[in-house]
Amino acid sequence: MITKEKIAEAYQLIQDEICTGLEISDGSAKFQEELWQRNGGGGGRTRIIQSGSVIEKGGVNFSAVYGKLPENIKKAFGVTEDDFFATGVSIVIHPNHPWVPIIHMNIRYFEMTGESGKDLRWFGGGIDLTPHYVIEDDARFFHSALKQTCDRFQSEFYTKFKNWADDYFFIKHRGETRGIGGIFYDRLNPQTTGLDWDDIFEFSLAVGRTFLSVYPELIRRNRNKSFNDEQKKWQMQRRSRYVEFNLVYDAGTKFGLETNGRIESILMSLPPQANWIYDFKASIGSEEEKTLKLLKKEINWVS
Amino acid sequence: MITKEKIAEAYQLIQDEICTGLEISDGSAKFQEELWQRNGGGGGRTRIIQSGSVIEKGGVNFSAVYGKLPENIKKAFGVTEDDFFATGVSIVIHPNHPWVPIIHMNIRYFEMTGESGKDLRWFGGGIDLTPHYVIEDDARFFHSALKQTCDRFQSEFYTKFKNWADDYFFIKHRGETRGIGGIFYDRLNPQTTGLDWDDIFEFSLAVGRTFLSVYPELIRRNRNKSFNDEQKKWQMQRRSRYVEFNLVYDAGTKFGLETNGRIESILMSLPPQANWIYDFKASIGSEEEKTLKLLKKEINWVS
Repeated sequence: MITKEKIAEAYQLIQDEICTGLEISDGSAKFQEELWQRNGGGGGRTRIIQSGSVIEKGGVNFSAVYGKLPENIKKAFGVTEDDFFATGVSIVIHPNHPWVPIIHMNIRYFEMTGESGKDLRWFGGGIDLTPHYVIEDDARFFHSALKQTCDRFQSEFYTKFKNWADDYFFIKHRGETRGIGGIFYDRLNPQTTGLDWDDIFEFSLAVGRTFLSVYPELIRRNRNKSFNDEQKKWQMQRRSRYVEFNLVYDAGTKFGLETNGRIESILMSLPPQANWIYDFKASIGSEEEKTLKLLKKEINWVS
Repeated sequence: MITKEKIAEAYQLIQDEICTGLEISDGSAKFQEELWQRNGGGGGRTRIIQSGSVIEKGGVNFSAVYGKLPENIKKAFGVTEDDFFATGVSIVIHPNHPWVPIIHMNIRYFEMTGESGKDLRWFGGGIDLTPHYVIEDDARFFHSALKQTCDRFQSEFYTKFKNWADDYFFIKHRGETRGIGGIFYDRLNPQTTGLDWDDIFEFSLAVGRTFLSVYPELIRRNRNKSFNDEQKKWQMQRRSRYVEFNLVYDAGTKFGLETNGRIESILMSLPPQANWIYDFKASIGSEEEKTLKLLKKEINWVS
């Protein structure tokens, strides 16, 4: 079995690759890095890119932290283990252009160790897309790429993780999905997947690498489209839904806020600007209305 | 004891008075009213004011709803009662001017009835102020007015409810208060206050009326001050903290979202625009730094 050090190392390489790829794709902005250390063990590399040609605000964060498991977390997991190790790469990109989608990607590994001798570790992660305007061709391209990645490892992964994403990225109080979903998975281990640890680890890296095969292409397809003030306003309104999801429902954000994580790294997922327009109604037949109709679970984008 | 119908009626009058007062204070914008009905019983009058001379977005909402208590709420309260009635007035005003503060006010009455014969009802509410820039004179004026209102009813109210507001309006993950606080109270009944029901009701109305004796004055004091782009940017950033508080911590918002309340009325508290600036640091000696230093609990504004 691959060691946690190797996992963290591979994740750092993924972070490097993605940062390079995004800088090329954007064409003007560069990442700023902040190294931070965690009281209690470990630390991270927060990398922020801002005010680019296309990327208005984005973060590509790596962290590898370890230490004693807080009592409330032990309770939540129902374990007696004392120590944990967690490493991951987490990305959110907010473009400045209403026709370029917001994207989110996360790959992570978590383990708990203690005297019980139980094998408590797993991989989690996913990629999902939040277009301000849903472009059906792009949605099909995106989901097909995810399916291709999944299919290389397990024939059931795509459908299972696509449904998981539909359920997870759901803004209950609005009755709409955050975007067009993608894949979401957690607690992957040999028991839950039928794969060995090395293959699960490789799957995690493959998900990480899928980011660069989809997002620069989606930027390229849409960055030169013209847009008007109304469309910009719509973008700012869609971003407010992103804020609502992340602050009200997102498990990672909640976990970070409750465990006194590094606030600026946790909340880098929030957009540079968001607007709440009172009681907005999309006009019939508009692009906005079309998008709202596609923010639903259970749309098949790969058939 | 005053009836629930009389309470709702008096609250509607408070809503009317406040809307009239705010329109006069703003000088150009007018409220738009939406009447709504709740499936299961009751309804409300949502009144929204937008794009005024000073008020960028504000809501003054009245509701009176009743019906069957949902099982999860019964559980949370630890009661067997089947029916509830709730009425209240709720206000949030977001001004367009960085030197004019955001204000929030709420007065409410809640009762549960059933076969147990227990007297399960109470008043709750409060007023609090969220200046983008804390102006100490204004903070003293505001808190003194609240103290005056409280002192007319009970000598301990102000200190008790001021501390309650400090604790309630606290953004834990930022380690800062939402604003300069005010008063917050809940579950007021004869046992918790030593007052009779009529006096508690009168206190609730007095809190409601205090709104107009403070907010138009705070608008008047600050609306003609000049401001620059940096100050406007700071305002947008302070608003993002308001969003964080309301979506992560506010009990009323959470309750509304979890019980399928009217989303547009619940989230009218959110600002028309908010910005998240990555890792903002106030420069030493700046007005921004001064404000951050005053966003703390336990500041005495009335001595």
